Amino acid sequence: MFISKSLGTNKDGNLTIGGADTTVLAKTFGTPLYVFDENLIIENMRSYKESIDTYYDGRGIVFYASKAFSCKEMARIANREGLGLDVMSGGELFTAQTADFPLDRVCYHGNNKDFEEIQQAIESGVGRIVADSGEELQLIDSIAKTLNKKQKVLLRVTPGVEAHTHEFIQTGQIDSKFGVTLETGAAFDVIDKARKLENIEFAGLHSHIGSQIFDEEPFICAARLLVGFMAKVKKELGINLYELNLGGGFGIKYTKEDKPKPYRTYMQDLIAGLCRACDDFKVEKPFLMVEPGRSIVGAAGITLYTVGGVKNIPGIRKYVSVNGGMSDNPRYILYEAEYEALLAEKPYEEGTETVTIVGKHCESGDVLIKDIKMPEIERGDILAVLATGAYNYSMASNYNRVPRAAAVMVRDGVPRVIIKRESYEDIVRNDI
Amino acid sequence: MFISKSLGTNKDGNLTIGGADTTVLAKTFGTPLYVFDENLIIENMRSYKESIDTYYDGRGIVFYASKAFSCKEMARIANREGLGLDVMSGGELFTAQTADFPLDRVCYHGNNKDFEEIQQAIESGVGRIVADSGEELQLIDSIAKTLNKKQKVLLRVTPGVEAHTHEFIQTGQIDSKFGVTLETGAAFDVIDKARKLENIEFAGLHSHIGSQIFDEEPFICAARLLVGFMAKVKKELGINLYELNLGGGFGIKYTKEDKPKPYRTYMQDLIAGLCRACDDFKVEKPFLMVEPGRSIVGAAGITLYTVGGVKNIPGIRKYVSVNGGMSDNPRYILYEAEYEALLAEKPYEEGTETVTIVGKHCESGDVLIKDIKMPEIERGDILAVLATGAYNYSMASNYNRVPRAAAVMVRDGVPRVIIKRESYEDIVRNDI
Repeated sequence: MFISKSLGTNKDGNLTIGGADTTVLAKTFGTPLYVFDENLIIENMRSYKESIDTYYDGRGIVFYASKAFSCKEMARIANREGLGLDVMSGGELFTAQTADFPLDRVCYHGNNKDFEEIQQAIESGVGRIVADSGEELQLIDSIAKTLNKKQKVLLRVTPGVEAHTHEFIQTGQIDSKFGVTLETGAAFDVIDKARKLENIEFAGLHSHIGSQIFDEEPFICAARLLVGFMAKVKKELGINLYELNLGGGFGIKYTKEDKPKPYRTYMQDLIAGLCRACDDFKVEKPFLMVEPGRSIVGAAGITLYTVGGVKNIPGIRKYVSVNGGMSDNPRYILYEAEYEALLAEKPYEEGTETVTIVGKHCESGDVLIKDIKMPEIERGDILAVLATGAYNYSMASNYNRVPRAAAVMVRDGVPRVIIKRESYEDIVRNDI
Repeated sequence: MFISKSLGTNKDGNLTIGGADTTVLAKTFGTPLYVFDENLIIENMRSYKESIDTYYDGRGIVFYASKAFSCKEMARIANREGLGLDVMSGGELFTAQTADFPLDRVCYHGNNKDFEEIQQAIESGVGRIVADSGEELQLIDSIAKTLNKKQKVLLRVTPGVEAHTHEFIQTGQIDSKFGVTLETGAAFDVIDKARKLENIEFAGLHSHIGSQIFDEEPFICAARLLVGFMAKVKKELGINLYELNLGGGFGIKYTKEDKPKPYRTYMQDLIAGLCRACDDFKVEKPFLMVEPGRSIVGAAGITLYTVGGVKNIPGIRKYVSVNGGMSDNPRYILYEAEYEALLAEKPYEEGTETVTIVGKHCESGDVLIKDIKMPEIERGDILAVLATGAYNYSMASNYNRVPRAAAVMVRDGVPRVIIKRESYEDIVRNDI
């Protein structure tokens, strides 16, 4: 019945996540509170990893996309599960470093890496850097030279496939700050020129076609375009591109309407499409990389809030305020993202009235869920907003100087704090 | 020529703010860097304060709205200038406390104050709490009772005036999470019931009608509705409401198209309208409060970035990437807010090509300025985005674990750091 298998109820009828009672979690750790189910995170990680093992003879690696939710403990879990890490900033790399993550399994991204970040990446020994342009390739080469290293790189290309939840288009050219266009020949030229760069090992291509995608077709379409391009590069430049990173973008279940396929099915179909393309274009099967973030951690997380003021404006709207909001989950105000919510003490109770759940910030757009059917709610209730594991903590702000919430990981019913709650002292720490 | 009087050029032809060379600031303090001109902040503060002195015999107070940009130094400046502070969270109040701000000049807001926040506010002796509902009034009363205090409160009401940049509507009812509606009688009922609350001193009303407003008419309209309501409350309940807080919302110049009036003119017109309403309704002139935030600090701040990759997609768009983005200025991705920008080394040079200035984050919406005419830009240039003083630092995140930028205050050409740059250690400080 619940949108995530992490959720359940216990003998008291309370909502559980990973077997832990959400009312107890709220009491023990305070609210707002991010809570994650480690078992589901691990299960998701294994879905991807085992798919590559099963359907592609293990010739690939899964990079967990840190941007979805980066902290030391996520790096540790990814490490234990044999995944790599996709990072896109010095801070995400630093997080991996401080969690003793094996850096040869790190893939460093970004449309505009600082000089210092490239230096940090090469010095620390990251396995791959994804260059965003020909100019950046040269920059990476020159920094590698001064460090007396040879750096493996991929080139981010835009294959001209743009995918969203239920649709995709093949445009050829893409209006994007990321990567180099395939269709115009720009990517070909960059690779041609890259031959002169002595301190880079040019291994292959990277593409990322969109977010929250429910269909494998756009991935297969992109893979086919990329493989075709690899054949052209081999034929015309004599360059063997032997690595292919297809990025992330697999969709998750935010609400009952969302129906993502099992990730193994995605991966099986994607790999079958890739293999077909390799056969058709007579290209050797490349080392495969995928970068799931949201689909590993999104549905495994919830946010617990305490309900404060409840305000009914007759004939207009009933507002339910919680003790967080756009500072801990900016996805409604950013994208009008949809979420579901449950009351911790009566998760099975039918919704009887339509309410709008809002935060405590001085901003009328500070909404978490607009027009949701809920059972009767009153001050003091614990409210769980579901599927908040991705792009919530990672995008959190201190707007109105509200301290960021703590994060708790639950394993087999046992919770542990993985990110401490910010204090007021933290808030003014850098003020002079 | 520049949109803010804080900006100028020096003998080297470089852009200055408050007399300081922006290229030197970038070199000295690094980028991204928030820079503020203290003289303009002070001038703006005085515009408001002296307007109340001149046009209203000093019978009022100006609360600087912390939410626009809260830090210890802003609290100190507001204190020195004799302003009060509008805060809306325990964190904003804590900032005032740690900056030794006189708490009787603090006004505490919020649609959903935590129990602990109300306690902190009353215990610390804040001058006024703005209650958001009848239920919250009771909560404030009961907490004040346990603390053996009598707390002065205002009631936030929605007068049914909604104002935006160039338009306003009078709707009567407002679909808002904030306050209690005037028109439906809800506010009247709350005040009627508040008479029984022994630990609150019910002083008056608060309203806030919108943001970035360029016209004094909506303020005058709201003031008139509120004064009419005060007359009704006096007549029918025998209650004398002697304080009136008209909130903030005065517009600033983000781009050349924006033409705000001088704040003294606003204030003069607003006060004249208020006095007329008091005469017409035979109401004694209330103690007046206004809460400018953006209009004090917005135009006095800029953000300096270093240009990184420049990418031309022929026939589509030219992207200029800078070393910051939605993490330090989320206002484009939130509201498609418009900004202007200048190159620090050639601020007077005419724009020759249309570019889109984007950040470094893994997000296609990570844009700072779409389609702006700029002179030729290349890697390493220092770019100043203008009028970023409000709702930039205060809404900043660590998305992609990018450390938050430092903030520098310039006074008479001399810069000093007021918020230190975050370090990678800060980023992982609370990770376990």
